[in-house]
Order: sequence, then C-alpha cells, then structure tokens
Amino acid sequence: MTRFRVSVHIIPRRGLLDPQGKAVTDALHTLGFAGVGEVHVGRHLVIETSAKDVSAAEASVRTMCERLLANPVTEDFEIAGVVKE
Amino acid sequence: MTRFRVSVHIIPRRGLLDPQGKAVTDALHTLGFAGVGEVHVGRHLVIETSAKDVSAAEASVRTMCERLLANPVTEDFEIAGVVKE
Repeated sequence: MTRFRVSVHIIPRRGLLDPQGKAVTDALHTLGFAGVGEVHVGRHLVIETSAKDVSAAEASVRTMCERLLANPVTEDFEIAGVVKE
Repeated sequence: MTRFRVSVHIIPRRGLLDPQGKAVTDALHTLGFAGVGEVHVGRHLVIETSAKDVSAAEASVRTMCERLLANPVTEDFEIAGVVKE
C-alpha cells in the first residue's frame, strides 16, 4: 500500500443559489474591486489515504465524496489531483 | 479588458488545529475508510474578474485574498489557475 495525497474540489452546482458567493461578490465590490463578476465558493479538501495505486486512490476518494463529503443534490465534485507522498 | 476566471485555494496553515479536517477524518474512519490519514479542509473559490492580462488578473485576486478572502493569521492561499473566459 502506498500513501497518496488526493485533492478534491466540491463546488455548488451551477444555476443553484450560492449565497456565500454572492456575499463575497458584494464585499469585493464594496472594497473597490469593480471588475469582479460572479464568485463561487466551494470546498477544497486534501485527503491522505493508502491505496495500491493512483487509480485505486482516486476511486476510493470518489466513493468518500459520494457517501459523505459532497451533497449530491446541490454540489458537484471533481478530483483535482493525486500525488504520491 | 478581458474576462478571466481565477481559481484560488485557501487552506488552513500547516501545524494549526484543523477541527473540520479532524471531524472528516473521524467520520471517514467510522464509515470504514481505514486507510485515511490526515484530512485538510479549505475553501476553493472561483472568481470571475476583468483585467488587461493574466498577470494583472492574478495580481488582483492576490490582493483580494490579502484584503478579504484569507485570514492571514491562520490560512495560506494559492492561485490554482487563471483561464480566459
């Protein structure tokens, strides 16, 4: 078994209300960043896990997202990277 | 001015307590993912902004992170990517 460090992005599904993103947009406008359009705020997770190879590590983290980490109704996730430790 | 979509990772500084990451680790162990070690939970932001080029877009988002988005005491940030819309 090898240790891997897997990065995941969990983002609000497009088209759904993103109140946190809206709040950040408004705050940035207030601070004078006039060129800012939409902002989306999601989560960035870095998970250290043991697996036999890269694809097993990725599959395992995908299952974690489906079972616990991402809300299947409102969020999408993507594996951003897998690096060997 | 061109529109850019800038991705930013904001993560708890290494060595500081990350209670959310600890909670996720424990929950994953409970679900049977025994191989999971440390988990770090941060934020993933996607910011749409206007700028004259890629480096200006990146510099502008860096300033946003320093002034509003990241907590300089407890968090580190990195620009994960800049794409032209």
